[in-house]
Amino acid sequence: MHKSVSGFSKLSKSEKIDWIVTHYLSGSEASKKTLLQYLNSDKKLQQLHDEFIENTISNYYLPLGIAPNFKINDTMYAIPMAIEESSVVAAASKAAKFWMSRGGFKAEVLSTTKIGQVHFMFHGDTAVLESFFNIVKPKLLEATKDITKNMDARGGGILDIVLKDKTEAINGYYQLHGTFETLDAMGANFINSCLEQFSKTFKAEAQLHLESPIEIVMSILSNYVPDCIVRAEVSCPIEELADKNIEDPEMFAKKFLQAVSIAEAEPYRAVTHNKGIMNGIDAVVLATGNDFRAIEAGVHAYAARNGQYASLTHAKIENGIFTFWTELPLALGTVGGLTGLHPLVKVALDILGKPSAKELMQIVAVAGLAQNFAALKSLTTTGIQEGHMKMHLMNILNQFEATDKEKATIVDHFKTHTVTHSAVVQAITAIRQ
Amino acid sequence: MHKSVSGFSKLSKSEKIDWIVTHYLSGSEASKKTLLQYLNSDKKLQQLHDEFIENTISNYYLPLGIAPNFKINDTMYAIPMAIEESSVVAAASKAAKFWMSRGGFKAEVLSTTKIGQVHFMFHGDTAVLESFFNIVKPKLLEATKDITKNMDARGGGILDIVLKDKTEAINGYYQLHGTFETLDAMGANFINSCLEQFSKTFKAEAQLHLESPIEIVMSILSNYVPDCIVRAEVSCPIEELADKNIEDPEMFAKKFLQAVSIAEAEPYRAVTHNKGIMNGIDAVVLATGNDFRAIEAGVHAYAARNGQYASLTHAKIENGIFTFWTELPLALGTVGGLTGLHPLVKVALDILGKPSAKELMQIVAVAGLAQNFAALKSLTTTGIQEGHMKMHLMNILNQFEATDKEKATIVDHFKTHTVTHSAVVQAITAIRQ
Repeated sequence: MHKSVSGFSKLSKSEKIDWIVTHYLSGSEASKKTLLQYLNSDKKLQQLHDEFIENTISNYYLPLGIAPNFKINDTMYAIPMAIEESSVVAAASKAAKFWMSRGGFKAEVLSTTKIGQVHFMFHGDTAVLESFFNIVKPKLLEATKDITKNMDARGGGILDIVLKDKTEAINGYYQLHGTFETLDAMGANFINSCLEQFSKTFKAEAQLHLESPIEIVMSILSNYVPDCIVRAEVSCPIEELADKNIEDPEMFAKKFLQAVSIAEAEPYRAVTHNKGIMNGIDAVVLATGNDFRAIEAGVHAYAARNGQYASLTHAKIENGIFTFWTELPLALGTVGGLTGLHPLVKVALDILGKPSAKELMQIVAVAGLAQNFAALKSLTTTGIQEGHMKMHLMNILNQFEATDKEKATIVDHFKTHTVTHSAVVQAITAIRQ
Repeated sequence: MHKSVSGFSKLSKSEKIDWIVTHYLSGSEASKKTLLQYLNSDKKLQQLHDEFIENTISNYYLPLGIAPNFKINDTMYAIPMAIEESSVVAAASKAAKFWMSRGGFKAEVLSTTKIGQVHFMFHGDTAVLESFFNIVKPKLLEATKDITKNMDARGGGILDIVLKDKTEAINGYYQLHGTFETLDAMGANFINSCLEQFSKTFKAEAQLHLESPIEIVMSILSNYVPDCIVRAEVSCPIEELADKNIEDPEMFAKKFLQAVSIAEAEPYRAVTHNKGIMNGIDAVVLATGNDFRAIEAGVHAYAARNGQYASLTHAKIENGIFTFWTELPLALGTVGGLTGLHPLVKVALDILGKPSAKELMQIVAVAGLAQNFAALKSLTTTGIQEGHMKMHLMNILNQFEATDKEKATIVDHFKTHTVTHSAVVQAITAIRQ
């Protein structure tokens, strides 16, 4: 078969690159040079990165930026953010500085429980299954002692296992629903290892003691963590909201609340509103070596928990005090996974003062809240495009390798014209003629 | 104030690094070396990456891997994936190879409409607003001619604008709800520019012709795109599912369908099920320079559209044929944004044969479906930990800079023991004593 390959994973990296260049890049030397140009000249460091995943051929760069001036629970932070989208770090920095002189951010972890389930089928008597479960439960815990030993010693471990009857949803469907405290670890491997052991022990015991068979479908943690919640908030008297872009703080606060209530009521807006929150959250999640797909899935499902997808931030004015806050689920780790492996992740965690998982939850939630504050401030005052297009303009100018003089002329021109890709191309073509 | 800074963005990159090292890294020379070690030695290339965002201090590496052997609509692809999580590329590659010899993936774009809204308040007579809107609508379109000219010429542009009465949700709340066709562009800047122009023209006209004032709250695109949908599917006769891990294809198919129906019925499972789909999707989204936060938000909100968060993939057996498919919203671009700026993104798009946005939607949806197939196959047969822990083990061994001989000994040991971080540390400590 054309363009297929056997044993690709067993090729060396340079053989992989050659295969791709030959079969999918028409032998382009320029493309090969690009792939190689992104490799680190330190071979040991490069090998480390190669081995994080399979079939690695290069390093994909995300810019690592710094958003300084975050005051969180009266401690100052400079937050590392890995993100490709322009304006996000700038917006976070602006919001941080704005709130630094207005009391800063307050953040609090409300809960840290994680969840995993063994999904199984059983077509016998539910009451029999329930008594069996109560008898076998201590054995499930006993069988995982080797796995939980260290976590137990640090004060975490398995919190509970309950049997859940889900037969109303699917005929014969039950769960062993486990709850876990994984402390500073995100805990995916810990939870999955416990669950797979539960399922082995549960099945073996069932074969000995139950007439109707147990059929294990699968055992896996849940990324839905509505009991692993952090709250972040800012507040100040309305009149203190005044700054160079906010001449009328009363009006600003009113419009800001309108914008939040629209995101609470209208899913089309809520999705983009929360997407903006995630710009801030994911950038820190990535920089600190956590798994942004897990965070995204948990957060958005939480946003839909009441049956209609809605805003994750809220705002109110009470007794002349403006308050803006979020509560969202964040299952993060500061040990295990990439946190100890990726040298830049280590530096990012050092910049944040080697936080515990709870502290990181607070920092990440604050980054999301700051991002949303900045977005709503832009949207309800100047519009989102002004700041965004300024960065976009620079990116287009770089694409055309504009000189500093060309850049200055064109930036000046677009102070009074709408930035579109074609308008910029026209402008640069015009001054080069 | 301690550790705060003014004018950080105006510092040079090396001044920014020095400030961070001094104020947040206790002057650590080792940390500084790490930040510098990740910079590219090609200054022009490095400057390009520095300017993508603000306050850049280094390049965050994500491994760029290749998953070969994807047969999609009878064309072969090798799919570039940028992701830090082990097993994802391996799983995609396995699923690709499995289906390559069983007819491959079929994919189809069902719709490509994007959405943006001007949110505004109006407290006058709704009937008056409606007549006013009908009169002003051609003027809104006329006012955006400069912005839409090029998009129009290529066959895209503004599809429609409708007035939406949302006063049941919030007193006085209305929308100009715009629909757009942005062709090969993701279209965020295009849509936002159009919307901001709508709002300017709409407000100006309202001041001339309406007694009650219009108050614009904000103008912005929506990342919720339920009319920008791609479908991907695999199917084959049940008996052809047999392979070295599937001895009993009937039993496999039955269990696979159970696993899918659990994800359809149980939100705790659905979130992780879809998270796995997003592992595949985001890796291609990142490699091709698209915005994964936008994709994540749109996809998860779509998963919750019926009031309960549910699986994005589905499976059935009909007339002895096993079929597994997904339909999900993906607003992607192959021109504009990072696609023309990031050299590795250009190479990734070249590897995919310079796809149109529609082709990329198909490829990305297939990557998600493949990922989910591989995950469900593992979960319902060997369990997820076997493959995952093999990679995890190698990562821990690399962290301890294990020699090849040490690696061999320990990998052998863990063929019969459960991999946990502490067990591996113990094992390596033991053989070094």
